[in-house]
Amino acid sequence: MKEQILELLRQHSDKYMSGEELCKRFAVSRTAIWKHIKDLQEDGYQIEGVRNRGYRLLAVPDLVTGSEIRNGLQTRRFGQYVVDLKNTGSTNVIAAKLADEGEPEGTLVIADQQTGGKGRRGRAWYSPGGTGIWMSLILRPELPMAQAPQLTLVAAVAVSLALTEIVGQKAGIKWPNDILFEDRKVCGILTEMNMESEEINSVIVGIGVNVNQELHDFPLELQDRATSLRMVTGQRLQRAAAAQRILEQFEVLYDLFLREGGFAPIRELWKRQSVTIGKQVVAQTPRGVIKGIAVDIDEMGALVLRDEQGQVQKIYSADILLAPPV
Amino acid sequence: MKEQILELLRQHSDKYMSGEELCKRFAVSRTAIWKHIKDLQEDGYQIEGVRNRGYRLLAVPDLVTGSEIRNGLQTRRFGQYVVDLKNTGSTNVIAAKLADEGEPEGTLVIADQQTGGKGRRGRAWYSPGGTGIWMSLILRPELPMAQAPQLTLVAAVAVSLALTEIVGQKAGIKWPNDILFEDRKVCGILTEMNMESEEINSVIVGIGVNVNQELHDFPLELQDRATSLRMVTGQRLQRAAAAQRILEQFEVLYDLFLREGGFAPIRELWKRQSVTIGKQVVAQTPRGVIKGIAVDIDEMGALVLRDEQGQVQKIYSADILLAPPV
Repeated sequence: MKEQILELLRQHSDKYMSGEELCKRFAVSRTAIWKHIKDLQEDGYQIEGVRNRGYRLLAVPDLVTGSEIRNGLQTRRFGQYVVDLKNTGSTNVIAAKLADEGEPEGTLVIADQQTGGKGRRGRAWYSPGGTGIWMSLILRPELPMAQAPQLTLVAAVAVSLALTEIVGQKAGIKWPNDILFEDRKVCGILTEMNMESEEINSVIVGIGVNVNQELHDFPLELQDRATSLRMVTGQRLQRAAAAQRILEQFEVLYDLFLREGGFAPIRELWKRQSVTIGKQVVAQTPRGVIKGIAVDIDEMGALVLRDEQGQVQKIYSADILLAPPV
Repeated sequence: MKEQILELLRQHSDKYMSGEELCKRFAVSRTAIWKHIKDLQEDGYQIEGVRNRGYRLLAVPDLVTGSEIRNGLQTRRFGQYVVDLKNTGSTNVIAAKLADEGEPEGTLVIADQQTGGKGRRGRAWYSPGGTGIWMSLILRPELPMAQAPQLTLVAAVAVSLALTEIVGQKAGIKWPNDILFEDRKVCGILTEMNMESEEINSVIVGIGVNVNQELHDFPLELQDRATSLRMVTGQRLQRAAAAQRILEQFEVLYDLFLREGGFAPIRELWKRQSVTIGKQVVAQTPRGVIKGIAVDIDEMGALVLRDEQGQVQKIYSADILLAPPV
């Protein structure tokens, strides 16, 4: 009922809702209403209570709850069902469990804080409380395995476009799917997939975005390569609003991609948002270091390099260091 | 200790092992030894016990236990660690759990009977007790996601070659990975993969082989399209021995494949073992029916068809009906 009271206050934030009216609507006592209001205030909602007039919502806190994510969200599936957690090990782990249990496409797991946030290649992802978007989305595309790598590119393009819109400045994609502002990482994407024979069973797209950190909030070893939306814009942002833009952009591109022949536009968008293509790169692959100029990505998501001997090489899995154009 | 006694009897099956010697080796009483021998006899091992001479192993039953799988197995990793189960829902499900818990490459889960055996596309796989090989192998290849579909082809080629060797007659591959004798299915392969970002985390290769069934052992609806090794050869076979040939062949091809550039020979072998290439086929895909002549498979495991208009079509996911060449 607390959430329903919040919804009512949201809808009528231009006026006061009388305690009496709230009592009637929910068929409970004044004291019950008052307790829920007090609860909401403790969550950080600024609710004014004026004798003989009632309650009014003045300001919402920066929370990543289901209520804040769903409020005004312009999607049909993505984020319409939210599992919100104050603190968890890894939202990808929770989402994978829910996917196994049959939760539908679009189910979102979001946490205020992760204690075991996962990055690529077994690395940790620093996910302190109150400052970032740490979320994982369940997808169930009807796609053959061969197209699975394209899905990771769709996610990168969606986040890059959403962050570009929020900040008003290009959020560049660094292959395979880091998002950068001014050569510093603002977002990482970890895609985990479950395949059965030649078909995709479920995909978990984990998205971590640094939102309200300041430089000194990052561990020392990250301070020369991490950034946040706040550091780029100079302003605090509501995390839920940023998460909404990402979900909305992602759903649009995902639906476009699933319609036949959708990969060509995604690939073009990826290249346009990329800060990798055209750069001299050093690729640390499991089979050694390859240097060259990044010239393209192929349909499998591989980075295409022209190496120092003029040979074309495809990189499927690597850590990439970028250098300025030669 | 029961298994160690069995190993000793195996090694000395040309002579009698005295009870006294067995007592000494394991530092237990005669009664303890006798109890284990009785246990083994109840499992089906024919062990002769002669007063004043000792015990001798005369014949082994058709069991798919760790002991029978490992005995004489010519592999380095595949099947060297075995989880054997009398009866389970699905060996793929158990293997997936073990993979999540970190069990290494080559770990084998094998069951005498499956009550929830899984086939492709959510179908059931009929897995009665005492008659077939129902097993799942954990793999952890260092491979980019783009090469994952090739792995499924490696499994199909390995099983096809092993069964060809066992039966002395070509076991044909029907795309994507059914194995047929005389147009009847003797084996199905269900590959499940877990990917993290652009890399494979773990692969479960589930292999189901009909070994000792007779026609009337199959449910009515399968009788016109299923077969068993026994039906083809006219002989009962030891399931563990057949499983060993599969594991040995699979390890050889898998290692070949993982060495750089290993896919070209696999693809050639696949085509040579195929009963799909050159045939008129009807492909029931998620996007409708496509008819044509199967002309190739590509690097992604897609079946390449030339349709009735002469157009080349790639099939990533479908059920295939074969027709004789036109």
